[in-house]
This record gives sequence, structure tokens and C-alpha cells, in this order.
Amino acid sequence: MLTAPGKDVPPIRAALAHMRTQEIVAVARLCQEYPDAISLCFGESDLPTPLVVRQAAELAMAQGKTRYADRRGIAPLRKAIQDYHRRTNGVEVDLERLSATSSGMTSIMISLQCLVEPGDNVVVVAPVWPNIVIAIEAMGASVRFVDLHASPDGWSLDLGRVEATCDDRTRAVFLASPGNPTGWTMTSAQQRELLELTRRKGIWIISDEVYHRLVFDDSIATPSMLEVADENDAVFVVQSFSKTWSMTGWRLGWLVHPAGLAHQVGNLSAINSTGSATFVQHAGVAAIREGEPFVAEMLERSARGRAAVADAFRGHERILAPDVPASFYSFFRIDGVDNSLAFAKELVARAGVGIAPGSAFGDGFDGYFRICFAQDPKRLELALERLIAAV
Amino acid sequence: MLTAPGKDVPPIRAALAHMRTQEIVAVARLCQEYPDAISLCFGESDLPTPLVVRQAAELAMAQGKTRYADRRGIAPLRKAIQDYHRRTNGVEVDLERLSATSSGMTSIMISLQCLVEPGDNVVVVAPVWPNIVIAIEAMGASVRFVDLHASPDGWSLDLGRVEATCDDRTRAVFLASPGNPTGWTMTSAQQRELLELTRRKGIWIISDEVYHRLVFDDSIATPSMLEVADENDAVFVVQSFSKTWSMTGWRLGWLVHPAGLAHQVGNLSAINSTGSATFVQHAGVAAIREGEPFVAEMLERSARGRAAVADAFRGHERILAPDVPASFYSFFRIDGVDNSLAFAKELVARAGVGIAPGSAFGDGFDGYFRICFAQDPKRLELALERLIAAV
Repeated sequence: MLTAPGKDVPPIRAALAHMRTQEIVAVARLCQEYPDAISLCFGESDLPTPLVVRQAAELAMAQGKTRYADRRGIAPLRKAIQDYHRRTNGVEVDLERLSATSSGMTSIMISLQCLVEPGDNVVVVAPVWPNIVIAIEAMGASVRFVDLHASPDGWSLDLGRVEATCDDRTRAVFLASPGNPTGWTMTSAQQRELLELTRRKGIWIISDEVYHRLVFDDSIATPSMLEVADENDAVFVVQSFSKTWSMTGWRLGWLVHPAGLAHQVGNLSAINSTGSATFVQHAGVAAIREGEPFVAEMLERSARGRAAVADAFRGHERILAPDVPASFYSFFRIDGVDNSLAFAKELVARAGVGIAPGSAFGDGFDGYFRICFAQDPKRLELALERLIAAV
Repeated sequence: MLTAPGKDVPPIRAALAHMRTQEIVAVARLCQEYPDAISLCFGESDLPTPLVVRQAAELAMAQGKTRYADRRGIAPLRKAIQDYHRRTNGVEVDLERLSATSSGMTSIMISLQCLVEPGDNVVVVAPVWPNIVIAIEAMGASVRFVDLHASPDGWSLDLGRVEATCDDRTRAVFLASPGNPTGWTMTSAQQRELLELTRRKGIWIISDEVYHRLVFDDSIATPSMLEVADENDAVFVVQSFSKTWSMTGWRLGWLVHPAGLAHQVGNLSAINSTGSATFVQHAGVAAIREGEPFVAEMLERSARGRAAVADAFRGHERILAPDVPASFYSFFRIDGVDNSLAFAKELVARAGVGIAPGSAFGDGFDGYFRICFAQDPKRLELALERLIAAV
């Protein structure tokens, strides 16, 4: 059945007739109308992509790497990704399990396309990046949120609630660890427990791990599901170049999947986008092979930003900001605010600072806000001053 | 319901358990095992992307255009596309109807995502690029082929057969004009007739027009559905930078849609890939604004290739090649061949030439083959000599 979403609009699938609006985009666009506004809305640092990556793209372009590439990614990139997992997670991943994609989001989409039909549902650990919800609902499936629990020490997940939320139409559990927007990070022990749960129920895990290098203890990376799952487990691991190497505008990610699904993943990659630009894939090789100094710089900038936010919010009577073990976000509550979107819009106009409304990240998060703190220290400090003065 | 496609493979949607194999890719991969083989398998010229486009990408990269862009494309690109339609089709397309995407294929995917549920069907004019069929089937929908009719003068479409093939689960008619692999090109009169048909039935047209500039009479471009349809008609027009500006490896395309679906198209673009790389979009502006000399060069190379193929095949007792009014392909039948894939594979090993098997393009096309003739004249000549000698 096709349905017309409005006057003069031809009919489309009912699942798309009333798609959610993008509240973060709405605030970011408003920021553009105020030239002095500082936007901390989007999930990206203001650090440019490292030179070594840009140079690799230019070289590849000059060498004519401008034609179609293999739909699952060029061989040197898949090999580099294999080496990267060995180095950061201490695991050996078969090349047949590694497919380059157009982005972390594309990897999530391919995972969902493998699993979800209209009427199915996906259990989603929330708060969560809104595009995940839009993707699941676009397929005519529904989202069952399991909210993390907030305390001053940070966020935590009750796996009993995950189990209780599954029903016979549940196809997968989606979770991001480290989480966007919370920075919540799963322990290996909890990963094992979740894996046991999904094995028992015959459902999948879609594990979004794109913030795995932005971790504030001395680890190289946060624990990956790859470290606990077997190679044929029903697990997709989602990765991206966007956050680790400041490549948000490059559209390059990858997906780790069971080897037996390589054909399916290849076909889905082909029909979604036919992969990432060929010379961008060559740049991805340089990011992995030569980008470690930049990862350190990004982590240092994030750690400084995290400290600045903690200093600014400490002891504030209306702001409650749980501790952030990983990611480059602070997700905080402002006491007395019950409409995050209205408040965020007002803040742009009144204080010249753009923050993402918490209501975008799930049903229970009105009153919350997200900022990305991986910013130039002076710019961040000014934004925090404006925010504190306005609250 | 999830289904395990094989031993040790965790369960996925039944629609994906037995996805079609990619016969063209199979032949192309075989070519890589024979260093002397000339592959004419893929739909791309051997001309590199024009320098002006590569330079624009480098400049944009140096200027820091490496961060997230608007999901429907950067404003200068959408404006350039608007100007381009005015110049090539003589139509004024509202900016709200224009969305940049990661590729022509992504534009097709977004169109299908708007329309198709499991159990639905799409009427597809065949022979057709195989990824279209894979995309429709991946959604759990089915393809109803309407084959073009071949004669020595070229290919033709019987719209009565299109009408007779529609049923109450038909959501759209997909057609490529100029067609891949045939070069078949619809007249404006037939476009009007098709539009009347789909209006009457309340279904959509997905019009793939990516070969519109590769036309061998004196036209600037082949007729577009945009020239006959109203702005609120149920029509998607699919476009790409790949063929016109030799940008196959860049992953950049666009979609023309009713203005009322801008929100849906934006969301779908966001969840599929979040668009094309930001600096690639800037390169797309240069392609449109400064790429006309290259379009002329590409057309000239294609015209030479077309003539070389006509010369080589003329009077051949086993090869039947209808005339090609547009595109950079020849789609020909070899008398006595009943398994195109086996023959094409044998030809790589025996004659050192790679041609795409016709069976990839629809159910009725075993015995047919496709070559892309927009190649270096010497290389094409050698490939044709090998082909003729082996048939």
C-alpha cells in the first residue's frame, strides 16, 4: 500500500509518510543564521583530516584511482583493516569477514537490511544516535528502547531489561559502545553476557564501535565484541574512519560480518552505494598505516575538552553531567528544562551557542543535551562560558 | 523470519538467503588472472577523470571541505545541477526537488525505499543493469520483466506489454533511457504515453537517465522524463556523474523527486550513506561548470568506438548487433551460444578478451553479450580482433 503524505505529494510507503524530523540538524541550521554562534551540535572535531591522509588521496587521484573498485573494498584497505584489528583488539579477523563500506551508517544499514522486515523490531540501547532509529523505522520495523541508567558516576546497562524487552519479532540488539551520546562503555564481561543472551534467543548483535579509540584510561582501545565472539556468531561490528581520523566528510567505514555473508554484504554494498570513492579507500590505508600520531592528537584534544567541560559544569546547581569514560561527547541534563529542542533553539538566539537536544536521542531524554568537546580549547571555553551564563 | 543460508552461517532474511551472483564481476575477476586480457566488461571508459575535476577535489580538500555536508548535498552543487537541467533539458527544476546522492545506484535505492515492501513488484524494462534486479529482490519484492524487442534497426518497447504486466502489487515501472546495455532511447511521445499509463494506474516511474549525454545524433541530450512530467508527478529521475564525466570511482549522483518528498529523501540519504564525500561534491560542481569540453571528448571517443564495433561486426555471420543510438555499449547476440556466462569465461582464457554475459541483464538474454566501446581505439581494435577471431 502506498499512502500520500500530504497534498500534492504522490503516495509512498506508509512507513515513510511521517518520518521523524532531525532535531540536531534543525539546531545546526539555526546556528548558520547567527554568524557568531558556536555550534557544538555535530559529532565531529574541528581538527582537519591529517595531511598524510589528504596527500594519499591526492596521490591516488593522480595515479588514476578514479574508476570502480571492488564492492567490498580494495584489497590493500581490507588488509590494513585486518592489521588494525590485530593491533587494537588483539584479534585475527579473516579477510572474508571484512568489507569496506561508504560509512559506519552504511554498515549499520547493510546489517539491518540483512535482518529486518516490516513488523520486526530491534532492541536499541538508548540514548542513541537518531539515524539508527530512522533507519529501523524506514524498514517498517519498530524500535524497542532500553534506556541506560544515569548516575553521577556514569551510565550503566541492565541486561535483564534487554532480555525482557525482546519478543519473537526481535531480530537484533543494537548498541554503541562507547556510546553516542553518553560515552558509556561496555565491559568485556558484559559483552560476554550479552552474547550469551543473543545466542540463547537466536538474534543478532549490531555493535557500533566507531568511538573505540577515544578512551580516557590507558587502553589502546575499548573492548570490542570481536574479542569475545566466535567468527560465526551472529554479530556485526560497525566501524568508521570518521571519528578516529577526523574524516567525517570522507564517507568511509567498514563492517565485520560472518564470512558466510560476504556475498550478501557485497551485493548490499553494491546496491546501496557501490562503496566509497576509490581514492578515498587509498586514503583510508594511509590513515590506518600512518595515522597513529593523529589519533594521539585527537585523543589529547578530546581529553582537554573533557576536562574543560568537567571544570565548567562542576558544582553547577542546574547541570548534571555524568562522567565520560570514552567518546568526545558530554551528555548532560539541565534541571527544569522539559523541552530540549525549544531550549536549544532559544540558546542559539539568546546565547550564541548550539547544543544538540537530548530528545533527538530517544524518548526519555527531554531535558538532556549533547555537546562535542573535541574542539579548539579557546572556542570550547567561549562556548561553555556562554552556555553557563545562559543556564 | 530469519533463515540460515548455509552451514555455519547465522540466519538472515529469507529474501537474502539466495541472492543472485554477479556474472559480470565473475568474468572481470577472471580477466585479472590473465595479464594480457582486455576487459570490456564494466560500464566505464578508460579515459581518466578530467583534470579540472580532480583539481577541484584537491582544492576543496586543501580548503578543509572534509567535514559533514548537508545530507541532500552542498548548496553550490544543487544549484549547479539546477542550471545543468536548464541547459540540457530546457526545464526549470525547483531546488527542493534536487538531492545529491552517493551515486546513481543510491538514487535508485532511495526511490525503491520510498515505494517497495515485501510482496510488491516493480515492472522492469529489460535487458537491464543487474543491480536493479538485486536491489528490488533484496527488499523482498519481485521483478516483472518486460523485454525490449530487438531488430536490426535497434530495440523497441511495447507499452501495451508494460500495462498488461502491471498488477495491484505493482509500485513502479523502472526503465533506463538510454538503456544499459542496449542504448535503446525512448521518444518524448512514448514518455508521455508511459506517464499517462502510470498516472492512470497510480504507480511511479523510476527513470534512469545516466547515459543522457552519450547520444549519437546532434542532440545535446536524450529526452528526459522531466520534460514531460509535472513537478508533482510520481516520477523519480536518476542521474550520475559516473558516465558523463568519467567519475565511476567517485560515487556521486543525484535524484530528482517531487518537492514534497525532500524530507524523506534527505532522511534516506542520511541512513544509506549520508551522501557523497564533501570535497567530491565540490568536484561535481567543477564537472558541471567546466566539464563540457570533456563531455565532447567522451562522446567523440564513444562515437569512434561505436563505428569500430559496427565495422568489425558488419556482415559477420554469427554476430547480430542492433544499431546503438546512445550509450557507450554494444549489446549483441552470438548465434549458437546458449550459455553466455560459460562462453564469456572461455573467451577470457582462449582469446584474452572480457565481455559481459547477456544472462546478467535479464532472463531472456542468454546468447547476448555487452561490451563498453568508449575505449582507447587501439585497445578496442585489438579486443575486437580477438573477439572476431574466436567466434
